[in-house]
Amino acid sequence: MPRDNDDPLLLTPGPLTTSAATKAAMLHDWGSRDDNFIAINARVRRRLLDIAQAADSHVCVPLQGSGTFVVEAALGTLVPRAGKALILINGAYGKRMAKILDYMGRAYAVHETAENSPPDPADVDALLAGDPAITHVLAVHCETTSGILNPIEAIAAVVAARGRRLIIDAMSAFGAIALDARAVPFDAVMASSNKCLEGVPGMGFALIRKAALEEAAGNAHSLSLDLYDQWVAMEKNAQWRFTPPTHVIVAFDKALDQFEAAGGVAGRHDRYAGNCRILVEGMAALGFRTLLPPDLQAPIIVTFHMPADPAFQFQRFYDSLKDRGFVIYPGKLTVADSFRIGCIGDLHADDMKAALAAIETTLREMGVASGAPPQA
Amino acid sequence: MPRDNDDPLLLTPGPLTTSAATKAAMLHDWGSRDDNFIAINARVRRRLLDIAQAADSHVCVPLQGSGTFVVEAALGTLVPRAGKALILINGAYGKRMAKILDYMGRAYAVHETAENSPPDPADVDALLAGDPAITHVLAVHCETTSGILNPIEAIAAVVAARGRRLIIDAMSAFGAIALDARAVPFDAVMASSNKCLEGVPGMGFALIRKAALEEAAGNAHSLSLDLYDQWVAMEKNAQWRFTPPTHVIVAFDKALDQFEAAGGVAGRHDRYAGNCRILVEGMAALGFRTLLPPDLQAPIIVTFHMPADPAFQFQRFYDSLKDRGFVIYPGKLTVADSFRIGCIGDLHADDMKAALAAIETTLREMGVASGAPPQA
Repeated sequence: MPRDNDDPLLLTPGPLTTSAATKAAMLHDWGSRDDNFIAINARVRRRLLDIAQAADSHVCVPLQGSGTFVVEAALGTLVPRAGKALILINGAYGKRMAKILDYMGRAYAVHETAENSPPDPADVDALLAGDPAITHVLAVHCETTSGILNPIEAIAAVVAARGRRLIIDAMSAFGAIALDARAVPFDAVMASSNKCLEGVPGMGFALIRKAALEEAAGNAHSLSLDLYDQWVAMEKNAQWRFTPPTHVIVAFDKALDQFEAAGGVAGRHDRYAGNCRILVEGMAALGFRTLLPPDLQAPIIVTFHMPADPAFQFQRFYDSLKDRGFVIYPGKLTVADSFRIGCIGDLHADDMKAALAAIETTLREMGVASGAPPQA
Repeated sequence: MPRDNDDPLLLTPGPLTTSAATKAAMLHDWGSRDDNFIAINARVRRRLLDIAQAADSHVCVPLQGSGTFVVEAALGTLVPRAGKALILINGAYGKRMAKILDYMGRAYAVHETAENSPPDPADVDALLAGDPAITHVLAVHCETTSGILNPIEAIAAVVAARGRRLIIDAMSAFGAIALDARAVPFDAVMASSNKCLEGVPGMGFALIRKAALEEAAGNAHSLSLDLYDQWVAMEKNAQWRFTPPTHVIVAFDKALDQFEAAGGVAGRHDRYAGNCRILVEGMAALGFRTLLPPDLQAPIIVTFHMPADPAFQFQRFYDSLKDRGFVIYPGKLTVADSFRIGCIGDLHADDMKAALAAIETTLREMGVASGAPPQA
């Protein structure tokens, strides 16, 4: 499919490269209280539930803002003021949930593992056994900090067996890593328009177990972020309480058309897995080493160690790749000097190969020995 | 200027009809941490300050979400936990500020006048004199509920003379009703992308007196809505803390190009005032009566009483106008049965005349006597 413009491709965790059809949906204006828009909004909500087989058990509550807004909204709405959370942390997004609860003054414990190490469900089980005050477990499905895939099914089983509730930040996984609400017990999963579903940024959403949301009146710390109030109002008249990002939502609907036409979660996963394989193998051939072993690597974003070769300068590398049409992403690790390259968005095998060719050329221009042994 | 599509025109308080050029800016994807986007973001922030002559005294803090999000964020960030607000209410948006403070558990008093009656600055003065605990006054510039223009300059003078601080919700006025930070003392004014500046919805912004914001660390009740944290982070690396709505921001920058080219606030005010005059005069000729007398009517949105003629059915009126290409807006008044028609967005004299022609035809089809005396 030819591209509609020569914008650099975004090999980042988002905002991403979106299709021409998705962006073209924004060439119209919509009245936010008009029937046409209301019908699109209802369709988007229904489709998001279907992606997680959650239509019988959960409701979809969309929210204006970035992914962090809907994460904060879900925590504020669902963790009661007298509740206590256990946060599983192995990166920046787990830490952010702790920061969110600090603002609200709600109680929590943390279980932190290294950025390249997933939490062990047996440890979670022991922590829950040892602290009956814990009501909710907060976990990140794919921690974008490193690209690690956390074992959400095993964690969910442990949490359910202990009679606690699970809230999942699936921002960078939802739509590409399967999550089946009929098999994996969770009270809420949060994601956004501009990750694996390939919409443009400006809204998030939470799929929330209906019974849990019905209990959540009065919990929230914020009017804007009260997902109970947002849901009740939207059920009443199908409208958003406050001005929705109409263009973003209509583009999201269009992106979901393409998601479904391309095979849904399985199709999306396969394309990203292919992108990831091409990237990791090609980078290995150029001497780059990944932070994560293959079994922990989600096909979303890959963290590479910085090369040891002193000729390698990250800013020059970044700028040169951008000039060649590829935007990559800085590292966010605390454990190692690194950078990241994403596999998600409207990117295909040829794009990944072209990115690798640009990387090879750039390394040559910088005088970095291709195949040089990476930094220890 | 020919339109780019045959979408219905939005005669609402927003989202509005935007220009083809503004929407076309969204046909690109941007890396949110890339230099090109960062430069656009900086330019938008600078331009918003210039609109209120505030660059020497204030800083611009943008925020993801709707206008209500940035209103809540400004109140949470600027009204200290030990502070007390006096909220001037004459419509839904004043009431919403009270609801926001209820969520936060912050102290406030209210001074409420009828929806068609502005607060009297002398009353505000007396209230401030009588309650030294009040630290902040919260006012709405144009109350979209009715379309009333509140006397913000006179209120600001009283608040300043009493040594208190003013926070202005100027959502539906900013950019079309002059507000000069050099002449009108305020700590913050909040507005959004999708009102008189004619961008698409998805972000708000606050212009905040720098000295006031510097004192505001630790006040906020929410990480996502902490404008102090948002500002400090953005000053550090010019990036948003959390994923910004890139397409919305780039479209906003394009809308600001057009705003400046068309004469800034004065140009925008004149076009809207012309739209409003055509609308009010034309509707009067068809027998409709406005809620507000001319001296209280802002040229933003006009509230009309429902006609008394039993042949008039609002839903049929709405649907028929929409079929003819014009989306109007329901009423929000508590004092009278009404509907609203907006004058803002990319609407020009010919559009208003075409809307009036459609209204006349619709009335005839409904069998409503044109020129019928309106409901008392």
